Amino acid sequence: MTTIGESEMQQSETNSAVLLIHCPDKRGIVASVTAFVYEHHGNILYLDQHVDAEKHIFFMRIEWDRDGFTLTGDQITEEFHQSVGSKFGMRWQLYFSYQTPRMAIFVSRRSHCLYDILARYEIGEWPVQIPVIISNHQDLRPVADRFGIDYHHVPITRDNKSRQERKQLNLLKEYEIDVIVLARYMQILTKQFVDYYPEKIINIHHSFLPAFPGARPYHSAYERGVKVIGATSHYVIPDLDAGPIIEQDVVHVSHTHTVGDLVRMGRDLEKVVLARAIRYHLQRKILVYDNRTVIFS
Amino acid sequence: MTTIGESEMQQSETNSAVLLIHCPDKRGIVASVTAFVYEHHGNILYLDQHVDAEKHIFFMRIEWDRDGFTLTGDQITEEFHQSVGSKFGMRWQLYFSYQTPRMAIFVSRRSHCLYDILARYEIGEWPVQIPVIISNHQDLRPVADRFGIDYHHVPITRDNKSRQERKQLNLLKEYEIDVIVLARYMQILTKQFVDYYPEKIINIHHSFLPAFPGARPYHSAYERGVKVIGATSHYVIPDLDAGPIIEQDVVHVSHTHTVGDLVRMGRDLEKVVLARAIRYHLQRKILVYDNRTVIFS
Amino acid sequence: MTTIGESEMQQSETNSAVLLIHCPDKRGIVASVTAFVYEHHGNILYLDQHVDAEKHIFFMRIEWDRDGFTLTGDQITEEFHQSVGSKFGMRWQLYFSYQTPRMAIFVSRRSHCLYDILARYEIGEWPVQIPVIISNHQDLRPVADRFGIDYHHVPITRDNKSRQERKQLNLLKEYEIDVIVLARYMQILTKQFVDYYPEKIINIHHSFLPAFPGARPYHSAYERGVKVIGATSHYVIPDLDAGPIIEQDVVHVSHTHTVGDLVRMGRDLEKVVLARAIRYHLQRKILVYDNRTVIFS
Amino acid sequence: MTTIGESEMQQSETNSAVLLIHCPDKRGIVASVTAFVYEHHGNILYLDQHVDAEKHIFFMRIEWDRDGFTLTGDQITEEFHQSVGSKFGMRWQLYFSYQTPRMAIFVSRRSHCLYDILARYEIGEWPVQIPVIISNHQDLRPVADRFGIDYHHVPITRDNKSRQERKQLNLLKEYEIDVIVLARYMQILTKQFVDYYPEKIINIHHSFLPAFPGARPYHSAYERGVKVIGATSHYVIPDLDAGPIIEQDVVHVSHTHTVGDLVRMGRDLEKVVLARAIRYHLQRKILVYDNRTVIFS
Repeated sequence: MTTIGESEMQQSETNSAVLLIHCPDKRGIVASVTAFVYEHHGNILYLDQHVDAEKHIFFMRIEWDRDGFTLTGDQITEEFHQSVGSKFGMRWQLYFSYQTPRMAIFVSRRSHCLYDILARYEIGEWPVQIPVIISNHQDLRPVADRFGIDYHHVPITRDNKSRQERKQLNLLKEYEIDVIVLARYMQILTKQFVDYYPEKIINIHHSFLPAFPGARPYHSAYERGVKVIGATSHYVIPDLDAGPIIEQDVVHVSHTHTVGDLVRMGRDLEKVVLARAIRYHLQRKILVYDNRTVIFS
Repeated sequence: MTTIGESEMQQSETNSAVLLIHCPDKRGIVASVTAFVYEHHGNILYLDQHVDAEKHIFFMRIEWDRDGFTLTGDQITEEFHQSVGSKFGMRWQLYFSYQTPRMAIFVSRRSHCLYDILARYEIGEWPVQIPVIISNHQDLRPVADRFGIDYHHVPITRDNKSRQERKQLNLLKEYEIDVIVLARYMQILTKQFVDYYPEKIINIHHSFLPAFPGARPYHSAYERGVKVIGATSHYVIPDLDAGPIIEQDVVHVSHTHTVGDLVRMGRDLEKVVLARAIRYHLQRKILVYDNRTVIFS
Repeated sequence: MTTIGESEMQQSETNSAVLLIHCPDKRGIVASVTAFVYEHHGNILYLDQHVDAEKHIFFMRIEWDRDGFTLTGDQITEEFHQSVGSKFGMRWQLYFSYQTPRMAIFVSRRSHCLYDILARYEIGEWPVQIPVIISNHQDLRPVADRFGIDYHHVPITRDNKSRQERKQLNLLKEYEIDVIVLARYMQILTKQFVDYYPEKIINIHHSFLPAFPGARPYHSAYERGVKVIGATSHYVIPDLDAGPIIEQDVVHVSHTHTVGDLVRMGRDLEKVVLARAIRYHLQRKILVYDNRTVIFS
Repeated sequence: MTTIGESEMQQSETNSAVLLIHCPDKRGIVASVTAFVYEHHGNILYLDQHVDAEKHIFFMRIEWDRDGFTLTGDQITEEFHQSVGSKFGMRWQLYFSYQTPRMAIFVSRRSHCLYDILARYEIGEWPVQIPVIISNHQDLRPVADRFGIDYHHVPITRDNKSRQERKQLNLLKEYEIDVIVLARYMQILTKQFVDYYPEKIINIHHSFLPAFPGARPYHSAYERGVKVIGATSHYVIPDLDAGPIIEQDVVHVSHTHTVGDLVRMGRDLEKVVLARAIRYHLQRKILVYDNRTVIFS
């Protein structure tokens, strides 16, 4: 893809590593982790930690500069396990800045979230590659074409869903996809599909969950006469609209707004809420625990 | 009650009348109503109208200066019915600015909404009289005392509720109360009670309804891991937390916030959301239709 | 231009007329205007009025259904002047829904506002035609090409400005442009240019004016250590960043945000603030008076 | 003071210590500080750090549980200096949870911020003692009396300012005041006064600074026709309204709002913005550097 316009690429050239950690809370965790980084000549760029005081769980995100760091990726895994991780019963994920995530976008017929994502992509707002768009309709193929991104039409009916999902899974494998964004994809994914990408499928739902789950939330909001409408981005789990919430926002409405107005105003919400959630994910800033998210700063 | 501090009384000295109207939508309504005001030498101060295009209902609020107006209150009622109201099948309410509403406050043990209301009252922010505070606890009597407002302790148990509600109703009658504010009053009113004050009991619920109705909404919000919490002010109807919504607002929260933090942040929301709802009511800016509110500007 | 995706066109098929009025405040204005509409068999769709109590100016927007209305456009102008307008010393503008405004977009090198506008345009969110994009750079030509919109490159230097502005004016004339949107167009227009399009040039400035006018507002905001950043859409007048404000919004920021973060977060603000302002303008909802805007509901 | 109503005291009984640190950025700071806490058997409760990448300054707030911690307060100071502070050229502040800050409130004639603060104080929302209220007017003495807080009337004129400020300073000394809140205190403090309490005087200004500094910001906002109004809480420095900003927020307004409406709506903003700033200060969450604030989470 060619880049259009003045680059506003915020990605530093930094060669960094990120560790996402959680474990039972205990004295000395931060000291041990930071000592590990320091002893191997890493310079901490960001550190954020959180303790769930009720469940006594410790969460941490640490990012350090690898310039001068004395361990390779594999060595980090091994050394960290031995000297820190095993001692505290940690579960951790390790990421490197040179590994750009590959993202697939699933759409149906509405274009607003897709355009929003692609416009951000084009100016390099996120560290991501978007090699493929998958849809159950042909409508948005011209948008994909304009941005030079592959578009696959995988129509879904009640009868062919499981077969078509296998087709989708093959495409995702073929394109080496790390994260899937449902940009107003109006199909419900099966448990089989979801289980392949735990905490890797980001959906945008057009209400402030848990209010108005399911279909036609703007109509329900109108009927109830609410004074705010919202949008919710969450990871997909097999239960519909019940996954861990990543981001939410709302906008004020009044009796003067028709359902059509709510739909229109909602589009602006959906775009920004989804974009913020994608950003958190791509920056490795999210840890999921107990169906809730920790969003590191 | 003596007034403390610099008066910031915004109430104009205007001698005005307000008509709240709704009827089936039809050509000529606005022309007829405004002609009525004009022909009797009224000067329109505000006019706001709304059409529910789906249900074909017309709503209107019109306020005019009565200086020089040629009709008395009773004459308005009669003349308006004959020359305008009956023609369009209108239902209407007529208010005069000299009629200051009398408001009762029901509280339990939490003081934040009560203080907020009384601080506004003391500087004359609203056109209202507050002669009485009623509570099922003694805790907030000192607050009432400080502001020189009568305080009645009417303890409620499962067994005495209906008797105690009669006692409350007698007090409301005695104090000639027009509107009741439940300022974090933790009791559920019976249908019998509610039916005495239709669209005259304003509650503050500590969630963005319809999410988290009932008890302990902040705990539920925490459990669900939402990223916004809200507050909702609504008129009370016999169904719990299901009445027409007057005002809502939200605040952003994160994983770092404990339930205690949500309670604390929620207090600030509850205060302003309730205060805005009270203001709309006192200014005769609310029409209820089909369990939804029209809030005139 | 072909329409992509499911049409969400909110534009009703209504054949309506809009009157924007202002005049000295006086008794009987609303009655006279609404009687005029009613007597010629118009059905009022919206009516909003405002009185500047300090300056005694009356403002009104009235929109009515022309189906069955007994006057043609020219007749309205003549009749309204004779029976209402002259009597109250009114200044008014008359618009018809069949007249779709023609909008030109001026851009420099940043694409975010342009994409946002074109994505809305493509789904028919606004009643508008966008026949031309004008830029002092070539960068965004591919975007225009993708959407099938003419793109004219009119490079500006200190020396050629007045000549190039004449070229721009000729283009605007040729394309029969009614309204100009400066979608992060980084050039200052001369008084000569601005005077051709009074209250018809909409700019987006990337700060909450009057704070941080001029160049590099995000840098200034960062330097001052503000906790909110904003965006302002306003009509252009010869004085830089001093025109009547149409819409503003803000987003919270913190010490953790670099200037680059402010730029990124600001883009999302700029898009929605500009889009809202454009919508108000296209819906004929703005009256300018004394360098302030009345935005009708 | 007696506590009214159900206690909502969020203060933990934790016996904790807080260190606020800043120094030139360098490898190993976090590891050293956390090792210091760990080696003396402290359990970290919160840790937040920030690096100003431009100026290469490192900022940190660390709070640990002192139960079982092996150093006394004086020993911490000494040991930390020797083993950590001196090595990195740190400047630091050390606080203990048992030291409840003592706060004075300065007011003039408006009561809204004062009531808001005292209502929070009464339910124990903040870890603070408020022994004294100082005013240049007598108006709010009754409020102080109601809450049982000493009230000192120190009238200020152009001629007696320096003498009266000395009187105020004596009172502050007498009451052992740690932090001063200007809760709509309409006097400008002299440089002499301010220099006694650097980063210890919190003001609320009724605009979104740097817009509309000085007097009558709501009038200026109205004149300029802005669509948002704001409030700013900041530390006082000798330059008027130019101190480091702690917190800001805004509310949307429209052409329908009079200056009186802005004043009324602004009161609600001022209350919450000031309250949030006070909370940050009392929780030792603020570091000032280069006239900007770092607000730790």
